[in-house]
Amino acid sequence: MRVEYIGIGQELLIGQVVNTNAAWLGAALRQAGLTLVRAWTVPDEAEAIRTALDGALASSDVVVLTGGLGPTRDDVTKAVLSAYFGMPLVLDAALEARLRAWFAARGLPFLPVQTGQAMLPEGCTVLPNPRGTAQGMWFDREGKAVISLPGVPYEMEGLVLEEVLPRLKTRFTLPATVDKTMVYQGIGESLLADRIAEIETQMTARGVSFAYLPNGSVVRLRLSAVGPDAPARVAVAEAAVRAVTEDRLIGARDATPAEFFGEALGARGWRCAVAESCTGGALAAALTAIPGASRWFLGGVVPYTEAMKTGWCGVAPELIERMGAVSEPVARAMAEGVRTRTGAEVAVATTGVAGPTGGTEAVPVGSVWIAVATEAGTTAELFRFGNHRSRTVARAVQAACAQALRALPAVDR
Amino acid sequence: MRVEYIGIGQELLIGQVVNTNAAWLGAALRQAGLTLVRAWTVPDEAEAIRTALDGALASSDVVVLTGGLGPTRDDVTKAVLSAYFGMPLVLDAALEARLRAWFAARGLPFLPVQTGQAMLPEGCTVLPNPRGTAQGMWFDREGKAVISLPGVPYEMEGLVLEEVLPRLKTRFTLPATVDKTMVYQGIGESLLADRIAEIETQMTARGVSFAYLPNGSVVRLRLSAVGPDAPARVAVAEAAVRAVTEDRLIGARDATPAEFFGEALGARGWRCAVAESCTGGALAAALTAIPGASRWFLGGVVPYTEAMKTGWCGVAPELIERMGAVSEPVARAMAEGVRTRTGAEVAVATTGVAGPTGGTEAVPVGSVWIAVATEAGTTAELFRFGNHRSRTVARAVQAACAQALRALPAVDR
Repeated sequence: MRVEYIGIGQELLIGQVVNTNAAWLGAALRQAGLTLVRAWTVPDEAEAIRTALDGALASSDVVVLTGGLGPTRDDVTKAVLSAYFGMPLVLDAALEARLRAWFAARGLPFLPVQTGQAMLPEGCTVLPNPRGTAQGMWFDREGKAVISLPGVPYEMEGLVLEEVLPRLKTRFTLPATVDKTMVYQGIGESLLADRIAEIETQMTARGVSFAYLPNGSVVRLRLSAVGPDAPARVAVAEAAVRAVTEDRLIGARDATPAEFFGEALGARGWRCAVAESCTGGALAAALTAIPGASRWFLGGVVPYTEAMKTGWCGVAPELIERMGAVSEPVARAMAEGVRTRTGAEVAVATTGVAGPTGGTEAVPVGSVWIAVATEAGTTAELFRFGNHRSRTVARAVQAACAQALRALPAVDR
Repeated sequence: MRVEYIGIGQELLIGQVVNTNAAWLGAALRQAGLTLVRAWTVPDEAEAIRTALDGALASSDVVVLTGGLGPTRDDVTKAVLSAYFGMPLVLDAALEARLRAWFAARGLPFLPVQTGQAMLPEGCTVLPNPRGTAQGMWFDREGKAVISLPGVPYEMEGLVLEEVLPRLKTRFTLPATVDKTMVYQGIGESLLADRIAEIETQMTARGVSFAYLPNGSVVRLRLSAVGPDAPARVAVAEAAVRAVTEDRLIGARDATPAEFFGEALGARGWRCAVAESCTGGALAAALTAIPGASRWFLGGVVPYTEAMKTGWCGVAPELIERMGAVSEPVARAMAEGVRTRTGAEVAVATTGVAGPTGGTEAVPVGSVWIAVATEAGTTAELFRFGNHRSRTVARAVQAACAQALRALPAVDR
């Protein structure tokens, strides 16, 4: 079964909004055994939406649209679908009552413009949206389905999980697709591909596809297969790849280095603390983004000034003066200091020059020292992440989590 | 002139990678006076790429492709374009020498697979890429242009800024487009639209378009016009809108609340510090993501445990015990404590229940107290951000920056 996606909104085309819905939907469909074969992004214009619908319906069985269902005038999707399917918009009185109650419960006025949200194409299947005012709509035509969803991510996500996927599963037979993702840090895409070149040749011949997804200092390798024996073929490929790449492998599912680190802490009953200068809170944010982080994350400091490095991490002012704030001894002292002060089993520190300014000849922009302290001792590594501020921060967070993972003691599984 | 974009990569369709290139490219083109009229996402498959190219060239003058230019086997874009334009791949010996030097400078081996990166379609215009091994390629056909760029964001961005936009500007006459973005916090999209309904009607008749872009607790309103008197018409609309929305306006350019806050600190010569429990480092990360933040950001603490709230912010343990960690007095004490301890002019604190667990009847998941302390006193507000962890954190960061902005003293401009 072929599924296409049409994202609607001028803001997506002029770059005011990154379309995260496309990736979320793609992943959700894939998990259900479906693969998006194509995605379109079009502005809030009737002609553009119709053209994309024609194109998608010509080659696919299911088309999912998001966006353009809001109450403001720039939103035209519902009117376009009403005309496209010849289903006039009619007032759904029960829905209007529900919307009025929804606003009343939030202490908000029910404005005249909201009545439009209760007008729906006559005869379409309404997918009720408990999270907002725009309803999902399902249109059937000649055995194909067109599904229109609101563009607000969590509203869209709720409707997909609760309404769309269950219906698709009963309507269509879905093939078995298996994806296995292996995550590497500290090895480039080409070097990784070179190491496993022979395995890739053999397994490709057996219908396992290999995809390399570099992201900062991490490369994700995706092994995929379709069909009844897909799990077995992917498992053989995984074992072969693992045997020659174990040293740079940090995890064998599609997760971030922070997630692997948090999981490893949980498995050991360890708790961590962080002291981050150049990553500026991004390391703590990556760790605390994980539900349940409070079980293994004690806290962090972002000592952006030298006084804070001294006050919060106990780094001696003379050490900073003598060695510079971006130096191995200061990184080590930050990690050891915050570990002692919090009582954490492991502490991670970063100090560097994120840029774009502040570099010197000895310590150019992009230089980052990362230190990891445990009771067994402290490791420290110097990285050069280039001259792009947000990229340097993101790479430093990945590298810090990977370095911390490697510093943990082995655990019986 | 019509421009379309084709993003190539199976990872985009199965949701392993969010396509940020589309938004970046859309914004860069828009700044140059060009608007993407449509975007496509297709897998790394010859047939899908050819179909999208046919479709895009049928209605547009310029087509920009990203992705599929890596050295690994899953990347097919260059071979497809070579066949599509009938230009066989030939070895560029000078490029190969440059690539060898590039690898040598990084202490990396030059693998056989890298030689493929020096094979280019004979007769295309090469757009040299100093940031990586995949070169940009420009193909001319019947007055139209097809431009292929690597998918790695900073490589693509460098090529667009240094090679693509300068060439487009000399080849095509670009129309004048004006966008003005006004950023609101603490007012919903419908309420905002209702307030400015009359202005929107009048200005739409004069060719100014209005778009509402909600994102968390922020709504961006974009006013756009095209043509020679576009700046004047947009300025009239902006003044009219501003007059009736000033109370919820936090800035009048396309920036984040953190950027507006940082800018306001800089204008006053003030410095800030943060103490964040439920935002877990995300507030500090949002502030330090801004280049030059070290001028006005002293540091932050992420006291995830009660002991850290006491140790780092001086919150009395009895207060936490009596009132609970998520309470107005604790939020105030965190802000005041971190302000005193850092010597910052303004300090911001967050404490809440990000979820998905940890809520109680009195303090449900999504409750966040935000406090802002200055020498003039401390403000505290309670928010209910719903039951989605990352959304709650993102909204709390926006609300904290907006609340901090409002707490700053007025400044002569």
